[in-house]
Amino acid sequence: MKTETISYRDGDVTLKGFLAQDETRSGKQPGILVMPEAFGLGPHAKARAERIAKELGYVALAGDPYGDGVQVTTLPEAMKLATPLFSSPAKFRARGRAALDTLAKQSNVDPNRLAAIGFCMGGTFGLELARDGAPLRGVVGFHSGLQTQAPAQAGKVKAKILVCLGADDPMIPIDQVKAFEQEMTTAGADWQLVHYGGTVHSFTNPEADGAAMPGIKYNKSADQRSWRSMVEFFEEIFA
Amino acid sequence: MKTETISYRDGDVTLKGFLAQDETRSGKQPGILVMPEAFGLGPHAKARAERIAKELGYVALAGDPYGDGVQVTTLPEAMKLATPLFSSPAKFRARGRAALDTLAKQSNVDPNRLAAIGFCMGGTFGLELARDGAPLRGVVGFHSGLQTQAPAQAGKVKAKILVCLGADDPMIPIDQVKAFEQEMTTAGADWQLVHYGGTVHSFTNPEADGAAMPGIKYNKSADQRSWRSMVEFFEEIFA
Repeated sequence: MKTETISYRDGDVTLKGFLAQDETRSGKQPGILVMPEAFGLGPHAKARAERIAKELGYVALAGDPYGDGVQVTTLPEAMKLATPLFSSPAKFRARGRAALDTLAKQSNVDPNRLAAIGFCMGGTFGLELARDGAPLRGVVGFHSGLQTQAPAQAGKVKAKILVCLGADDPMIPIDQVKAFEQEMTTAGADWQLVHYGGTVHSFTNPEADGAAMPGIKYNKSADQRSWRSMVEFFEEIFA
Repeated sequence: MKTETISYRDGDVTLKGFLAQDETRSGKQPGILVMPEAFGLGPHAKARAERIAKELGYVALAGDPYGDGVQVTTLPEAMKLATPLFSSPAKFRARGRAALDTLAKQSNVDPNRLAAIGFCMGGTFGLELARDGAPLRGVVGFHSGLQTQAPAQAGKVKAKILVCLGADDPMIPIDQVKAFEQEMTTAGADWQLVHYGGTVHSFTNPEADGAAMPGIKYNKSADQRSWRSMVEFFEEIFA
């Protein structure tokens, strides 16, 4: 396992991603973009990138949403950083594209076998890239924000979509789920959506202990199930 | 592979099930009850029982919902047979229990590793058994009817639940899905529910060609994905 910090740019912003790969593999591998929660690129997304490289042999880039690898610890700080991105689909997508392009041009990545996964806002990055017609085989969103200011247009979405949600996630109420399903169906996307019972937001993040907010809590069962669904999904899209 | 028709009873009704097993396996295996669509026990459910025995090595019993292995081909005929069962949760559950008990007492079945799967009304059989507290490790419902006259009570459901639905299934509208999710959450059940985009009712049944009704049609992708999810689910519950 080889991990390294790599710098890349989105306009005049320098981003610091985390690249993980099994350097003993020969030949080109699928490339997985891993986008973090709104707190910035931290241990959770990096650990998932490492797992993908280690368990599956793919090349994984954990992307930096804000620049300089900045991380924050409180929701108000995160919202302050995220809001300028959320308010502009073009900026948001460009930030995701910068990471995806960086991943695609790695010498051992097969640019025809790319996928994006993400957690919370990180999932939204994947979905926005899909809406933008990015050359992704698939997108997996975990407790992923589903709303957009620029809904997918018919025929535009190339990526197959898998969204894994806690059924009790207060940040992703059923009306948003319904609207998203309708958007994807209207766009003709290939999509699946899973609801895990008794599960709230951030269910993949062991650091989410429910102390700060009851609606944000790790759930081991949903974490393991959604990860296995992702692995199955990768087997399908990279077959 | 060994298959045979076996007779069993529910009160004064004689039922004719279809038992499939890999007779070369030694030791006790998980037992899977497979309940068919409302048309009666036909090729579709029998084929799935055979696949379970062949691919997974489990013992599978495809159950007879009506007696004497009767099958019908039209929806009005099916409704005529199904209505007396649907109108009485006690009768419905007894019919399912008769099949489950028959499966559990097979010499090569481990009665501590049972699951029920089913298609449409067959899925409802599994869910009704779960609501009734039957000794099942899991239930998988494919395009499964979710409604009941006797909602699950808190703490009663022992089985883990996986429901796989077409998002465009006209027979299982979103309000029923929401009500079911709420029922299962209130009961404290361990549940998951998957929505497949662009998918209607009977998506697992290759004979459903959309000719009779546009809302009833085979979908290869959803069929394969839901089957794999079931296999993963079995690995979890029988681990």
